[in-house]
Amino acid sequence: MKALRSTERGLDLIDLPVSRNENEALVRVIKSGICNTDLEIIRGYAGFYGTIGHEFVGIVEECNDDFGLIGKRVVGEINAGCGVCGMCLAGDSRHCPDRTVLGILGRDGCHAEFLTLPSKNLLEVPENVSNEEAVFIEPLAAAYGITEQIKIIPETHVAVIGDGKLGILCAMVLALKSMNVSLIGRHRSKLALAEARNIDGILAEKVEGKLNRQFDVVVEASGSESGFETALDMVKPRGKIVLKSTFYGTPTWQASRVVVDEITIVGSRCGRFGPAMELLANAQIRVDDLISEEFNLTDGLKAVARAAEKDVMKVLLSMSN
Amino acid sequence: MKALRSTERGLDLIDLPVSRNENEALVRVIKSGICNTDLEIIRGYAGFYGTIGHEFVGIVEECNDDFGLIGKRVVGEINAGCGVCGMCLAGDSRHCPDRTVLGILGRDGCHAEFLTLPSKNLLEVPENVSNEEAVFIEPLAAAYGITEQIKIIPETHVAVIGDGKLGILCAMVLALKSMNVSLIGRHRSKLALAEARNIDGILAEKVEGKLNRQFDVVVEASGSESGFETALDMVKPRGKIVLKSTFYGTPTWQASRVVVDEITIVGSRCGRFGPAMELLANAQIRVDDLISEEFNLTDGLKAVARAAEKDVMKVLLSMSN
Repeated sequence: MKALRSTERGLDLIDLPVSRNENEALVRVIKSGICNTDLEIIRGYAGFYGTIGHEFVGIVEECNDDFGLIGKRVVGEINAGCGVCGMCLAGDSRHCPDRTVLGILGRDGCHAEFLTLPSKNLLEVPENVSNEEAVFIEPLAAAYGITEQIKIIPETHVAVIGDGKLGILCAMVLALKSMNVSLIGRHRSKLALAEARNIDGILAEKVEGKLNRQFDVVVEASGSESGFETALDMVKPRGKIVLKSTFYGTPTWQASRVVVDEITIVGSRCGRFGPAMELLANAQIRVDDLISEEFNLTDGLKAVARAAEKDVMKVLLSMSN
Repeated sequence: MKALRSTERGLDLIDLPVSRNENEALVRVIKSGICNTDLEIIRGYAGFYGTIGHEFVGIVEECNDDFGLIGKRVVGEINAGCGVCGMCLAGDSRHCPDRTVLGILGRDGCHAEFLTLPSKNLLEVPENVSNEEAVFIEPLAAAYGITEQIKIIPETHVAVIGDGKLGILCAMVLALKSMNVSLIGRHRSKLALAEARNIDGILAEKVEGKLNRQFDVVVEASGSESGFETALDMVKPRGKIVLKSTFYGTPTWQASRVVVDEITIVGSRCGRFGPAMELLANAQIRVDDLISEEFNLTDGLKAVARAAEKDVMKVLLSMSN
């Protein structure tokens, strides 16, 4: 099968045998989505070499347990725990110290014709959710996770910093709970996507470097150091900053300000797929206009180059099998 | 009156007239306590010039409203809000953007024979609480504030980093809620104070630089950059780090780790005096062995020098009036 792999020589599209794992389900990938994390992995983040990609929809081809999944269209939770540690036994394999993560850590990912995952990681996709929508389930669940970590009510003033794919998904999900959501970004075209959803789009230059302190909750989804500084400027005393994007490096921070203003910083990575799937099935979240382009896996290198360009939203890969 | 003041030339003991404020109560200070924040102010933190000190017990001499406080022995909440902003109207003058803070920000402090504060800031001291105990009310309230920000149950594994005065008070308060509290520090004599209170004392060198990840809650009370790194090493995934001490400078931090492990960082500054006073009145907290030495205000410069020495706990000032 073809697979898009991060190697020591860089990104490569390689032919390799389908790998099976007798304890896991074999999934034939239909479509996959390119995430910024894929781009960071190619740049060396996390030191992962192997097939990249963790956003997908596919069909279960083989599954040697009785989950009744064979032939079903599925998405898959990307963290696979060891199953025996305290975290796994407490039902939180996302934080298992020995976990593997699809296309990110110790496990080949989904930018390939086939992948394997434990069958308990798979979730069937309802008929009325399209393949294109289903590919968004992982980042949408990550965005939804914020609402499971902190309470958002209609009166909560929320700002999301970063108008990339994750930032817009976060703003969209938060706008289901709050009537006061602003998205801060550098791209008018992306801010327009938010404005079409009743979210205030604000150009970053209008808020950067200004002490504002008007927001109860600020979500940092820009993945840049300046994003965190801006978040500190925008959040109210006793407010919350949600750190949503992993980024490279070790920025400096004004720890004293966090103490004096009694700010809470909440690290937030993944979320549950179930509630996110309901948002798609109930058409509460619309993602069709977040897709910039679709490439065949055979053009995977081009697709990744395109995904790295400015002003581009989600780039999909489609497998020709 | 005599007053210990931070000036552009450094710390000085100065004679100056008693200053009155017709809207505030005049308090004759009996004793005051030297805090590390005093030492940081002398070094230039916060750019405050004026009478330092914010931990005190005193007698109300003048008070032109009907609080019935004249002649009463009192302690005082150190933040004075503007009274009209959103924060003040919501009852949170600690976060008023125009607040003054006793001996820290725009308001002369308590290392003097007299001070003024709004009468609503004052709290009467119960008879069975000594002057020496009452001086601890401000840092004790700050420590107690942690338990109002995050939930601590008997099973919560808690570590406090920093065996200074604030660290020990935090560990003592947290040990009232949790059966599993450890204090991490560099001074065997200070760790012994904790151990006498059923708190595990652990030498910092035993945990620094080691990935431990065993604690649900880690309180950073050392005021050092390495303290935060150690906190990150000690906290469980999904755990909480409480930042308790203000410190100078802008340390670097591994933001990605906060995201991946979904850690919550809680900035924590002050706390309510009422519950802290109850802890003293009910003898749930013992502070007598945390006092290293007492000086007369006339020896204030010596007292501050002593407070800055290693292995010293609380240094008190007593006013001879």
